[in-house]
Amino acid sequence: MQVQVRPRGSLDQLSQLEVERLRESAASELYQLYRNCSLAVLASGLTSDDSTALFERYQEFKVRVLRSERGIKLELTHPPEAAFVDGEIIRSIQEHLFAVLRDILYISDRYENLRHINLTNSVHITNVVFEILRNAKVISPKGETNMVVCWGGHSINDLEFQYTREVGYELGLRDLNICTGCGPGAMEGPMKGAAIAHAKQRIRDGRFLGLTEPSIIAAEPPNQIVNELVILPDIEKRLEAFVRLAHGIIIFPGGVGTAEELLYLLGILLHEENRDQPLPVVLTGPQSSRAYFDEINAFIGATLGPEAQSRYHIIIDDPQAVARYMKQQLADVKSFRLSVDDAFAFNWRLKIEPEFQLPFEPDHDTMANLDLRPMANKAMLAGHLRKAFSGIVAGNVKSQGVKAIRQRGPFRIHGDPAMMARLDTLLSAFVDQGRMKLPGSVYHPCYEIQPR
Amino acid sequence: MQVQVRPRGSLDQLSQLEVERLRESAASELYQLYRNCSLAVLASGLTSDDSTALFERYQEFKVRVLRSERGIKLELTHPPEAAFVDGEIIRSIQEHLFAVLRDILYISDRYENLRHINLTNSVHITNVVFEILRNAKVISPKGETNMVVCWGGHSINDLEFQYTREVGYELGLRDLNICTGCGPGAMEGPMKGAAIAHAKQRIRDGRFLGLTEPSIIAAEPPNQIVNELVILPDIEKRLEAFVRLAHGIIIFPGGVGTAEELLYLLGILLHEENRDQPLPVVLTGPQSSRAYFDEINAFIGATLGPEAQSRYHIIIDDPQAVARYMKQQLADVKSFRLSVDDAFAFNWRLKIEPEFQLPFEPDHDTMANLDLRPMANKAMLAGHLRKAFSGIVAGNVKSQGVKAIRQRGPFRIHGDPAMMARLDTLLSAFVDQGRMKLPGSVYHPCYEIQPR
Amino acid sequence: MQVQVRPRGSLDQLSQLEVERLRESAASELYQLYRNCSLAVLASGLTSDDSTALFERYQEFKVRVLRSERGIKLELTHPPEAAFVDGEIIRSIQEHLFAVLRDILYISDRYENLRHINLTNSVHITNVVFEILRNAKVISPKGETNMVVCWGGHSINDLEFQYTREVGYELGLRDLNICTGCGPGAMEGPMKGAAIAHAKQRIRDGRFLGLTEPSIIAAEPPNQIVNELVILPDIEKRLEAFVRLAHGIIIFPGGVGTAEELLYLLGILLHEENRDQPLPVVLTGPQSSRAYFDEINAFIGATLGPEAQSRYHIIIDDPQAVARYMKQQLADVKSFRLSVDDAFAFNWRLKIEPEFQLPFEPDHDTMANLDLRPMANKAMLAGHLRKAFSGIVAGNVKSQGVKAIRQRGPFRIHGDPAMMARLDTLLSAFVDQGRMKLPGSVYHPCYEIQPR
Amino acid sequence: MQVQVRPRGSLDQLSQLEVERLRESAASELYQLYRNCSLAVLASGLTSDDSTALFERYQEFKVRVLRSERGIKLELTHPPEAAFVDGEIIRSIQEHLFAVLRDILYISDRYENLRHINLTNSVHITNVVFEILRNAKVISPKGETNMVVCWGGHSINDLEFQYTREVGYELGLRDLNICTGCGPGAMEGPMKGAAIAHAKQRIRDGRFLGLTEPSIIAAEPPNQIVNELVILPDIEKRLEAFVRLAHGIIIFPGGVGTAEELLYLLGILLHEENRDQPLPVVLTGPQSSRAYFDEINAFIGATLGPEAQSRYHIIIDDPQAVARYMKQQLADVKSFRLSVDDAFAFNWRLKIEPEFQLPFEPDHDTMANLDLRPMANKAMLAGHLRKAFSGIVAGNVKSQGVKAIRQRGPFRIHGDPAMMARLDTLLSAFVDQGRMKLPGSVYHPCYEIQPR
Repeated sequence: MQVQVRPRGSLDQLSQLEVERLRESAASELYQLYRNCSLAVLASGLTSDDSTALFERYQEFKVRVLRSERGIKLELTHPPEAAFVDGEIIRSIQEHLFAVLRDILYISDRYENLRHINLTNSVHITNVVFEILRNAKVISPKGETNMVVCWGGHSINDLEFQYTREVGYELGLRDLNICTGCGPGAMEGPMKGAAIAHAKQRIRDGRFLGLTEPSIIAAEPPNQIVNELVILPDIEKRLEAFVRLAHGIIIFPGGVGTAEELLYLLGILLHEENRDQPLPVVLTGPQSSRAYFDEINAFIGATLGPEAQSRYHIIIDDPQAVARYMKQQLADVKSFRLSVDDAFAFNWRLKIEPEFQLPFEPDHDTMANLDLRPMANKAMLAGHLRKAFSGIVAGNVKSQGVKAIRQRGPFRIHGDPAMMARLDTLLSAFVDQGRMKLPGSVYHPCYEIQPR
Repeated sequence: MQVQVRPRGSLDQLSQLEVERLRESAASELYQLYRNCSLAVLASGLTSDDSTALFERYQEFKVRVLRSERGIKLELTHPPEAAFVDGEIIRSIQEHLFAVLRDILYISDRYENLRHINLTNSVHITNVVFEILRNAKVISPKGETNMVVCWGGHSINDLEFQYTREVGYELGLRDLNICTGCGPGAMEGPMKGAAIAHAKQRIRDGRFLGLTEPSIIAAEPPNQIVNELVILPDIEKRLEAFVRLAHGIIIFPGGVGTAEELLYLLGILLHEENRDQPLPVVLTGPQSSRAYFDEINAFIGATLGPEAQSRYHIIIDDPQAVARYMKQQLADVKSFRLSVDDAFAFNWRLKIEPEFQLPFEPDHDTMANLDLRPMANKAMLAGHLRKAFSGIVAGNVKSQGVKAIRQRGPFRIHGDPAMMARLDTLLSAFVDQGRMKLPGSVYHPCYEIQPR
Repeated sequence: MQVQVRPRGSLDQLSQLEVERLRESAASELYQLYRNCSLAVLASGLTSDDSTALFERYQEFKVRVLRSERGIKLELTHPPEAAFVDGEIIRSIQEHLFAVLRDILYISDRYENLRHINLTNSVHITNVVFEILRNAKVISPKGETNMVVCWGGHSINDLEFQYTREVGYELGLRDLNICTGCGPGAMEGPMKGAAIAHAKQRIRDGRFLGLTEPSIIAAEPPNQIVNELVILPDIEKRLEAFVRLAHGIIIFPGGVGTAEELLYLLGILLHEENRDQPLPVVLTGPQSSRAYFDEINAFIGATLGPEAQSRYHIIIDDPQAVARYMKQQLADVKSFRLSVDDAFAFNWRLKIEPEFQLPFEPDHDTMANLDLRPMANKAMLAGHLRKAFSGIVAGNVKSQGVKAIRQRGPFRIHGDPAMMARLDTLLSAFVDQGRMKLPGSVYHPCYEIQPR
Repeated sequence: MQVQVRPRGSLDQLSQLEVERLRESAASELYQLYRNCSLAVLASGLTSDDSTALFERYQEFKVRVLRSERGIKLELTHPPEAAFVDGEIIRSIQEHLFAVLRDILYISDRYENLRHINLTNSVHITNVVFEILRNAKVISPKGETNMVVCWGGHSINDLEFQYTREVGYELGLRDLNICTGCGPGAMEGPMKGAAIAHAKQRIRDGRFLGLTEPSIIAAEPPNQIVNELVILPDIEKRLEAFVRLAHGIIIFPGGVGTAEELLYLLGILLHEENRDQPLPVVLTGPQSSRAYFDEINAFIGATLGPEAQSRYHIIIDDPQAVARYMKQQLADVKSFRLSVDDAFAFNWRLKIEPEFQLPFEPDHDTMANLDLRPMANKAMLAGHLRKAFSGIVAGNVKSQGVKAIRQRGPFRIHGDPAMMARLDTLLSAFVDQGRMKLPGSVYHPCYEIQPR
């Protein structure tokens, strides 16, 4: 099966050199990256968090960029059928396909080669993040502060999913837009809810912004509500994109990934220079997930202290209250940006230390080197903690991490005994609450906690 | 509580005389009609099929048309709170409010007084229907044949509701639009499904057309997905609007109202002059509603015969098959219209006899006068049968009918014993299947069947 | 030669009855009216103010309304070639053609028959004017006060034409829109200038509104810059439309028609109830037309007095000053409308006496019956004077008037000797300045002034 | 005087590094370049082809990029007043200002430093041209072949100007777009004519594309009809942009610059690989400019031969014929592009030799080194000839060239005596026809022709 697909969305024209650069070739890493991300996008209807299985199933899949009278078109060989309706590609998938092409080319052009990025200057990193987002046309000049970033698990239960939907609905009724990691679960629910609310409010240009990265896109393929998709080169730039685009952040129940995101966020908000920055953060879920937030709140209280706790607001089982609180706080965000002449669309002023920008490559060595113990600099401690969680996420779902675990056994995490006990409690609670794997499967931990 | 609302949608400007005509006055029937329809629209979030209760609850509600610098605005006193989010009116409701104003004025202007309509010329009636639709800007010049009319009950069960949603989703994926009676249940499900599909297909101008009438709007308030709302003066003009706007018709499970609509439709399609007209009709529902369609199909086979049965297609539990069949048939509709130079947007060529156009006012006398017995002219028979069902709908939910039943007891329906037995079987099945009332209530039949 | 033309602009769909009503027939006055207005619009490229010649030249021209799959289309037989480019109709002419169809049908529907209008109630007349404009979609709900009505001659000289263009350019640079009688000369110049200015200011929805009437359209066919064309039934409703739509009025040099318009305007502005109404009026022209305005100003001073003179502002040879003055005054118009809750788009509050609304049919009798003499009520006197000028316009260019003059000789105008002398002076000046006929032709007065 | 200007058009957001790069500094060449181009754009209403005078007059002018809540804004100090209407910047100028910012930054980013460009690979040069155009969003994916490039003098006489306007009008009536060097004269006339025609044809997205370069922009500031402005880094890339964007080319009377453009074009079209390329070229002017084209045609016949003459078509004094011929030929261009799968929007297939791509820096040495004599390779000869003309243009109007001439006297051009005689004849004719300078000034030749 072979089909040709025309451009749709924010990319139309490629130069001959760009077309050349993506020529299919077993040896070309860029082609492989491009092909895999394209496949992930085409597989968005198929539920699975096992990217390896996906790649095995569609070994025959190929994508080729052809020149045509209107610029370019894509030729897909053996694409997943779920991307088509009666032989026609679903237009949201078509847009995502060209978003992948746009971003892979842009990033490759910026770095010449994705693997050898070694940007260590904080200002330059932020500029790269900005340029990727600008090239994807998601930096809006409209002058609104209505982008709510929603974080949370991609494999939450039905009750939680329904709750994220209701929160999204209430946000949408209040003219707010949604930005997520763009996969299923808590990344899809708020968008679905907001889409219905936008229809009722006659909002035709509602924004459903999805930020993803090559190493995660196959495990969490973009849901089709996403109408602006951006592929960032790595998790650190993706997280920076989230916090610089966000006017407010909502954290739904999730697993270690969600905890990682919260720690990353607190690490930044606790920085001295960010103390005056208004950035509303709400942790919320249905009644049944109260325990999850209690565990996390206790862990943060014990490790990062009350100042950290004061940077978020927990609301249980009240979607309207969440949306109302967010809407009110966003007015403060707006006046703050105006008062300091900062852009509404990109939070330039937020201070992010290189610690939070430089890629952390979790492997058996880097994980073993973490030394988690109480520190005066809570922002720094939050950074260390989030690395531990980052490694566990990699070991659970990222293909390289999963492979490493298969070969060398679980990661070992060291640290202060009391803190390790806290960590163990939290992670065990996640396992008990079934937040480590897709329902139905048994979780084999990819880590061992070792106090020292 | 008092709020002012600006115009939104297809009406902006009124003349001084028009503003005058709607001045609040206990004595003005036009004002009362206008006020009640406005209230119904504002109550769209509140579920109930008891319009009397609604009117009692909001006795204090008033609406006033004010002149303003941009034309007019409305002043609402004591409106239902559900129409507002944090004090702002939901924009879909705002549009509906002005659709009501637009249509009530237009109809009143056309007839001077709604109650004394006595149009008996078939061509004139059709023209009135056309003019009302044109004034509401729903006659599109775009040259598409993609309007699928969906009929079915407003109080179906969850399983059936979910099914109508899935069918709507599959229709929406195929770029089709939805037209319904615009209330809840089978009138809302297909729209919700199609709205999500349109989002995935990036269709921004998807049409969700709702056709209602003053006497039913309070019992079946327009759902908020409806983005084009038209108030027709009576059920006959509303039904004519449906069939002339439809490029295809899907009938979901419902109750007597749905049966009435099917009989009306067959009465027209069986007319000799309409034999060459392609108009796809699908009866569909989930596995659990197979019995419902079996009963109806048997009743039609027994009364109207196999030709009538050949004008529809029954598909059980297969949303994709429904949408695919519809999409294919619509191509035939298009080529037929082209071949006879008929408008895509309004089926002028369809022959509708005055029998189906003139208001049937069901009361104890007109119902008692029906004489249902086998006839050679099946189209005529279908017309008589639909009147019987029309009366039962009135007795069940229309305020005047309900009042009449309360005062004088059930309607009496007479006819040929075999046919009466068939009818009794069908209606009993409806009662058994709980299709006569909202769940939880006990049904007291508003009719008695009397063979003679 | 025969071509078919699809709808364009604000009319798309007609009912069968409407199509029927326009069927070609020598006996149908409505068809003849429709055909003649259509011909006038098609002839817009051909310069001539002799409508009789036009009708003679295109005797074979026919227009037929056909039904088609997208609603309707027009079939033109032997249309003027100037309306086409390489066989395709120019799209502005196409729009005008359908504007004619829209308005002729609407007016005919409103009155059943144009000739038997006998509306004498002031409120009703104003409502009819409003309804015709609303039906033509020229009543904008946008809430702007930027419509500048420009009056002036249709056969002015090059210098004056260039001046009107420069004024239009300066108005357009200041985001103002233009409304004129839509023919050539001073009705075209300001639009051409503003169109270029709008392009420079990137205004894509600039409005060039043309108001015409069946009896004048052939002599002053709409220029192609006009992007909103309305046909009003007679000169009184057309004048009322001008003053109720205007936020400001500019009067360029012209002839008797222009003087008529100024008198009409003063008649209204001098009304007691209109004294508080801000409505900027500028009389302007190049240096060479200073004499023209001096004559008029003197005539008004002598007949209507200084209060009348205070309602306009004369600016000679300074387009920028004209535009700046207008722009400043429009802010007052806006605040006045806001303060009295009157619509921006239609000046409901302006009091217009029936005297100025009822058609004045100038013929030898009605003209002879005018008795022009000093009165305390200057508004009334302005009304009488404008009738005298109205009759001269008819005798000069309107087909019925021209015919009457040919048959029975010049109109006779009676009145107070001093006032008659003033009038004679003014009219003689017009003749001397060549403002009575197209250049090149000799003017034979259609009137005689007789003091008594 | 100081004003702040918000972004308008295709640039909205800059990164912090980009804002930094444009910081005002006497030492920064990039800032000077940016400031001068901005000044040129702001001076577009002031007629003069003396850029030195402009810079002297506005020595105090400064531009500064500020960060703001919607991204950035510009602060202008002592800008030319002609760019403003009542204190508000004219929006076309506002767009041009941000086009300058966009292109200067993009080019600087691409090369790091404009002066050290040393691209010599043909494919890379073409890609750079493409990327600059794409970044400016002028590569349309719409799939149309309707872009007509118009070349000709910037200081032609009134008759010729009027003629270019009429040709533009006829092109516009046929839905064609205009691309020029974006200054006054033959670069403005066709746009003005087409703008009026587009208004009549209700074309709202008509394209008026101006291509300029930093060294010429001050002498030929963009006219305000231009709605897409691109600054290319040098004349060679600008010429390549013209021929790759063009679907057809019209050459109006001009001077040496126009002759240079024609020779450049013939040099490309005579290339063996371009023989099958349909690219309509029309030389046209009013009756009075017949001599100009006769001279040029004779020169080309004598130097490049009949094949070169067959690549263009001379039409004298017939705007309709020009437009009709162009429209017909464009259909061939479309089918050719389709047949070879080449983009409609950018002519990738056209072969351009490095000879025509590499910057030719005319100075006393390079001009003296030219050796003009008959050659078998006519394409090559055309290239040499165009360099001679390029030098004369520089000596006439480009600031560096003018300065060099002032210091070292006229350029010396050597070559075959017969060819030199031909050249002398042609240039003398230009001088006689007053095509070397603005009217009113006396031309002092910047060259001497020396046969050897």
